[in-house]
Amino acid sequence: METQSFLYKQLAADIESQIRRGELRPGDKLPSLRILQDKLGMSLNTVYQAYMELEAMGLVEAQAKSGFFIKKNRLLNMAAPRFARKPDRPRKVRLSDITNTVVANSLNPDLVPLGASTLSPDLLPQKHLTRIMRGITPEMMAPLLQYTPSEGSLELRRKLTFRMLGLVPDIRERDVTITNGCSEAVALALLATTDRGDVVAVESPTHFGFLQLLRELGLLVMELPTDPLSGVVTEGLSQVLRDNKVRVCLLMPNFQNPMGALMTDSRKEELVAILHEANIPVIEDDIYAEMHFGKKRPRLLKHWDQKGLVITCSSFSKILAPGFRVGWVVANGDVADRIRRLKAGFSMAAPTLQQHVLTQFLAEGALDRYLRLLRASVYNQVLKTAMAVQHAFPEGSRLSVPEGGNMLWIELPSWADGTRLYQEALEKGISIVPGAAFSTTDHFGHYIRLSCTSPFSEPVEAAVNTLGELVRSQQL
Amino acid sequence: METQSFLYKQLAADIESQIRRGELRPGDKLPSLRILQDKLGMSLNTVYQAYMELEAMGLVEAQAKSGFFIKKNRLLNMAAPRFARKPDRPRKVRLSDITNTVVANSLNPDLVPLGASTLSPDLLPQKHLTRIMRGITPEMMAPLLQYTPSEGSLELRRKLTFRMLGLVPDIRERDVTITNGCSEAVALALLATTDRGDVVAVESPTHFGFLQLLRELGLLVMELPTDPLSGVVTEGLSQVLRDNKVRVCLLMPNFQNPMGALMTDSRKEELVAILHEANIPVIEDDIYAEMHFGKKRPRLLKHWDQKGLVITCSSFSKILAPGFRVGWVVANGDVADRIRRLKAGFSMAAPTLQQHVLTQFLAEGALDRYLRLLRASVYNQVLKTAMAVQHAFPEGSRLSVPEGGNMLWIELPSWADGTRLYQEALEKGISIVPGAAFSTTDHFGHYIRLSCTSPFSEPVEAAVNTLGELVRSQQL
Repeated sequence: METQSFLYKQLAADIESQIRRGELRPGDKLPSLRILQDKLGMSLNTVYQAYMELEAMGLVEAQAKSGFFIKKNRLLNMAAPRFARKPDRPRKVRLSDITNTVVANSLNPDLVPLGASTLSPDLLPQKHLTRIMRGITPEMMAPLLQYTPSEGSLELRRKLTFRMLGLVPDIRERDVTITNGCSEAVALALLATTDRGDVVAVESPTHFGFLQLLRELGLLVMELPTDPLSGVVTEGLSQVLRDNKVRVCLLMPNFQNPMGALMTDSRKEELVAILHEANIPVIEDDIYAEMHFGKKRPRLLKHWDQKGLVITCSSFSKILAPGFRVGWVVANGDVADRIRRLKAGFSMAAPTLQQHVLTQFLAEGALDRYLRLLRASVYNQVLKTAMAVQHAFPEGSRLSVPEGGNMLWIELPSWADGTRLYQEALEKGISIVPGAAFSTTDHFGHYIRLSCTSPFSEPVEAAVNTLGELVRSQQL
Repeated sequence: METQSFLYKQLAADIESQIRRGELRPGDKLPSLRILQDKLGMSLNTVYQAYMELEAMGLVEAQAKSGFFIKKNRLLNMAAPRFARKPDRPRKVRLSDITNTVVANSLNPDLVPLGASTLSPDLLPQKHLTRIMRGITPEMMAPLLQYTPSEGSLELRRKLTFRMLGLVPDIRERDVTITNGCSEAVALALLATTDRGDVVAVESPTHFGFLQLLRELGLLVMELPTDPLSGVVTEGLSQVLRDNKVRVCLLMPNFQNPMGALMTDSRKEELVAILHEANIPVIEDDIYAEMHFGKKRPRLLKHWDQKGLVITCSSFSKILAPGFRVGWVVANGDVADRIRRLKAGFSMAAPTLQQHVLTQFLAEGALDRYLRLLRASVYNQVLKTAMAVQHAFPEGSRLSVPEGGNMLWIELPSWADGTRLYQEALEKGISIVPGAAFSTTDHFGHYIRLSCTSPFSEPVEAAVNTLGELVRSQQL
């Protein structure tokens, strides 16, 4: 009995450690009892007891007739960050000066990049992309110096259309327009759907780039109640639409920036139904979706779009090459025409050379091979950074591990000030982004966003420890 | 006496032929009498008589104490196109469907490209640019995959600032923002200076891309009386400003598209003074200025800008590599800040790789070497196409040879229809752009624009002859 007790505990500990290291990931299915029994030469009972032990620890859950799965968001002993359930009112976008310095600091290579917005170059397929570029001969150069059509190169649009089969019902090449990155896609979608003074509903908190853009376009922002784990609260949205004249929604349903929230399929479906009912278009920024830690790429809102109201924007900037400035927008009908005309007027066409390099990279089947490795690295970085935060930050801090993306959204104890932490961290050579940058409300003064865009390392761990000390010192 | 008569006539004919072939260009100074006398071993009187003969032919002119110069705009026996001196009224931009097909056809490689908007790849420094690109090693790749700051790479902004020394008084790097081509520069400048419903004054006719953009931004257009040779008529502008509420001007003072008009320095100075008086900003699109056939690059409106009201937009698209999508905007003060913020919101940053390649190209001193050759080729193309038009088109057609750019603006006899010619030419495998595409008025129904973007060749000559026949056949 003692041996068996030791055996199942040892097995449970081994699996736990695989989970903690990120080798098994939230949503992953554990091997069936019988398969593990055969593989390890243990009794069925030992394996079963190990699984029960893991379930008791809150790490796995049994699903009827399907087996055991790694539980989501339960890898830490910390509670998830909280959020405001009461809808805000439409506001003019006023941003503190900090937002400008945040962007500059996020690009500063001399800081430990916990405020970065893009992956460390070490993680990118530099050699492969260089090889494609160096393979360009003078004979190939002529068309690469010319404009592509303003909707983008047909070859790249074909590749993207193929990639979106199954994600966007009935997708055709003509629905896809290539843009200068996802930001241009979003900006043109906003221009195509709004007039100055209109109200745009966004998650709260939201990407500060969205807030800056809304300000520049003279649009009002309406922040929606948003769960840091599961995204926009649909009841909150309904209430907002009843009480306000919202012109368009601008959302990130998949691994939202800054929270990492992922809307479930049923919530997405419900959201699209509510917006269809109210006839309100929604711009979905899908830029982080390919960075899913679970097995499946999450669905698009556009999956449920019956009326051509969903405008999907994305790019390769967060997974492949930010500096390439190639993104795309998927839209239908009049709004698609309007976006294409705006694209032609605003920047004629996306850069030809990068469209060529990306087409080539996709044609070689290199993207999915690369993404499999990348996701594992990033998940590992995210998990280890989260562990380090749990270790270093004071009681009352809250954090959950997202199911994708590369960010951690941290609620500090209520007495702490995220903006002060941001400034003190800069003095220690560390960039982070204070929660205040992501909202026009004052709800997020004691929140921060940490990026996990570089491999976890001693300097990163030391930086997290320094942040923890800086937070603690605020209490003194 | 007969010998001498023969000698001076022969010399005059030789010089005339050099002018007609484009070896001597408008604005060029002829050698002094004494130098030519020494060089050719002729009498001073023979040389003098030859120059007088050329002057009598209207090809050269004597300037007091400076010598003899090739006259501008007098290489053909055709009269210049005419224009409307009476200002129009502000209009909503409505464009015929033809404008859309015009863009598509201008990119169609199967047509003789007399409607093209960019240079034939054969004229571009393909080998040099390929060499720079192939010189990129995996070690250099890391920063090239990342974003540059949204205002652009410092190295390229330095190179451009250096290039604009003497053109823009007191220019600093901080005044220059890199954009995704000149079209983004213009679009952001419009967004930064207007609200929906505002009136924007443009040349008449103007670049159809401007009209499309004004339409998409919900702006009204006010077409200004514009001389095909010397650009905006300042008296007309004054009258328009008295009678209308113009928010901003959008002009191409140097080799205007579609007419090739070049404003003189004094007219530019006067225009800036009028706008300063009225406190109206002006966006100048300078994209064709480097394609000057005379010795000097023409000045910018910004040269006379005392109040930071001039916003200068340009790019390398018309001289180097359209598909690179790298342009820039030079602005000051609040409007510059606004444009930089819009740039960050709209497309984050321009593509990094092309900024690197262009910086390298400029650093090697390659641009000016290349431009010297390019200008000679393009002038030759323009001149030969103009000669071919003079030969092929019916009596009553009007045309002048521009002093730069790569376009010919042709007024057909009043009974002819440019749009019908456009459609009939397409059937013959030739692209042109009908005058109607460049205006919201009905003044330009019997005008066309021909581009001279490819080396003059038999197919081009044949296409011009076909166009001439098509015009003639309209009279039957």
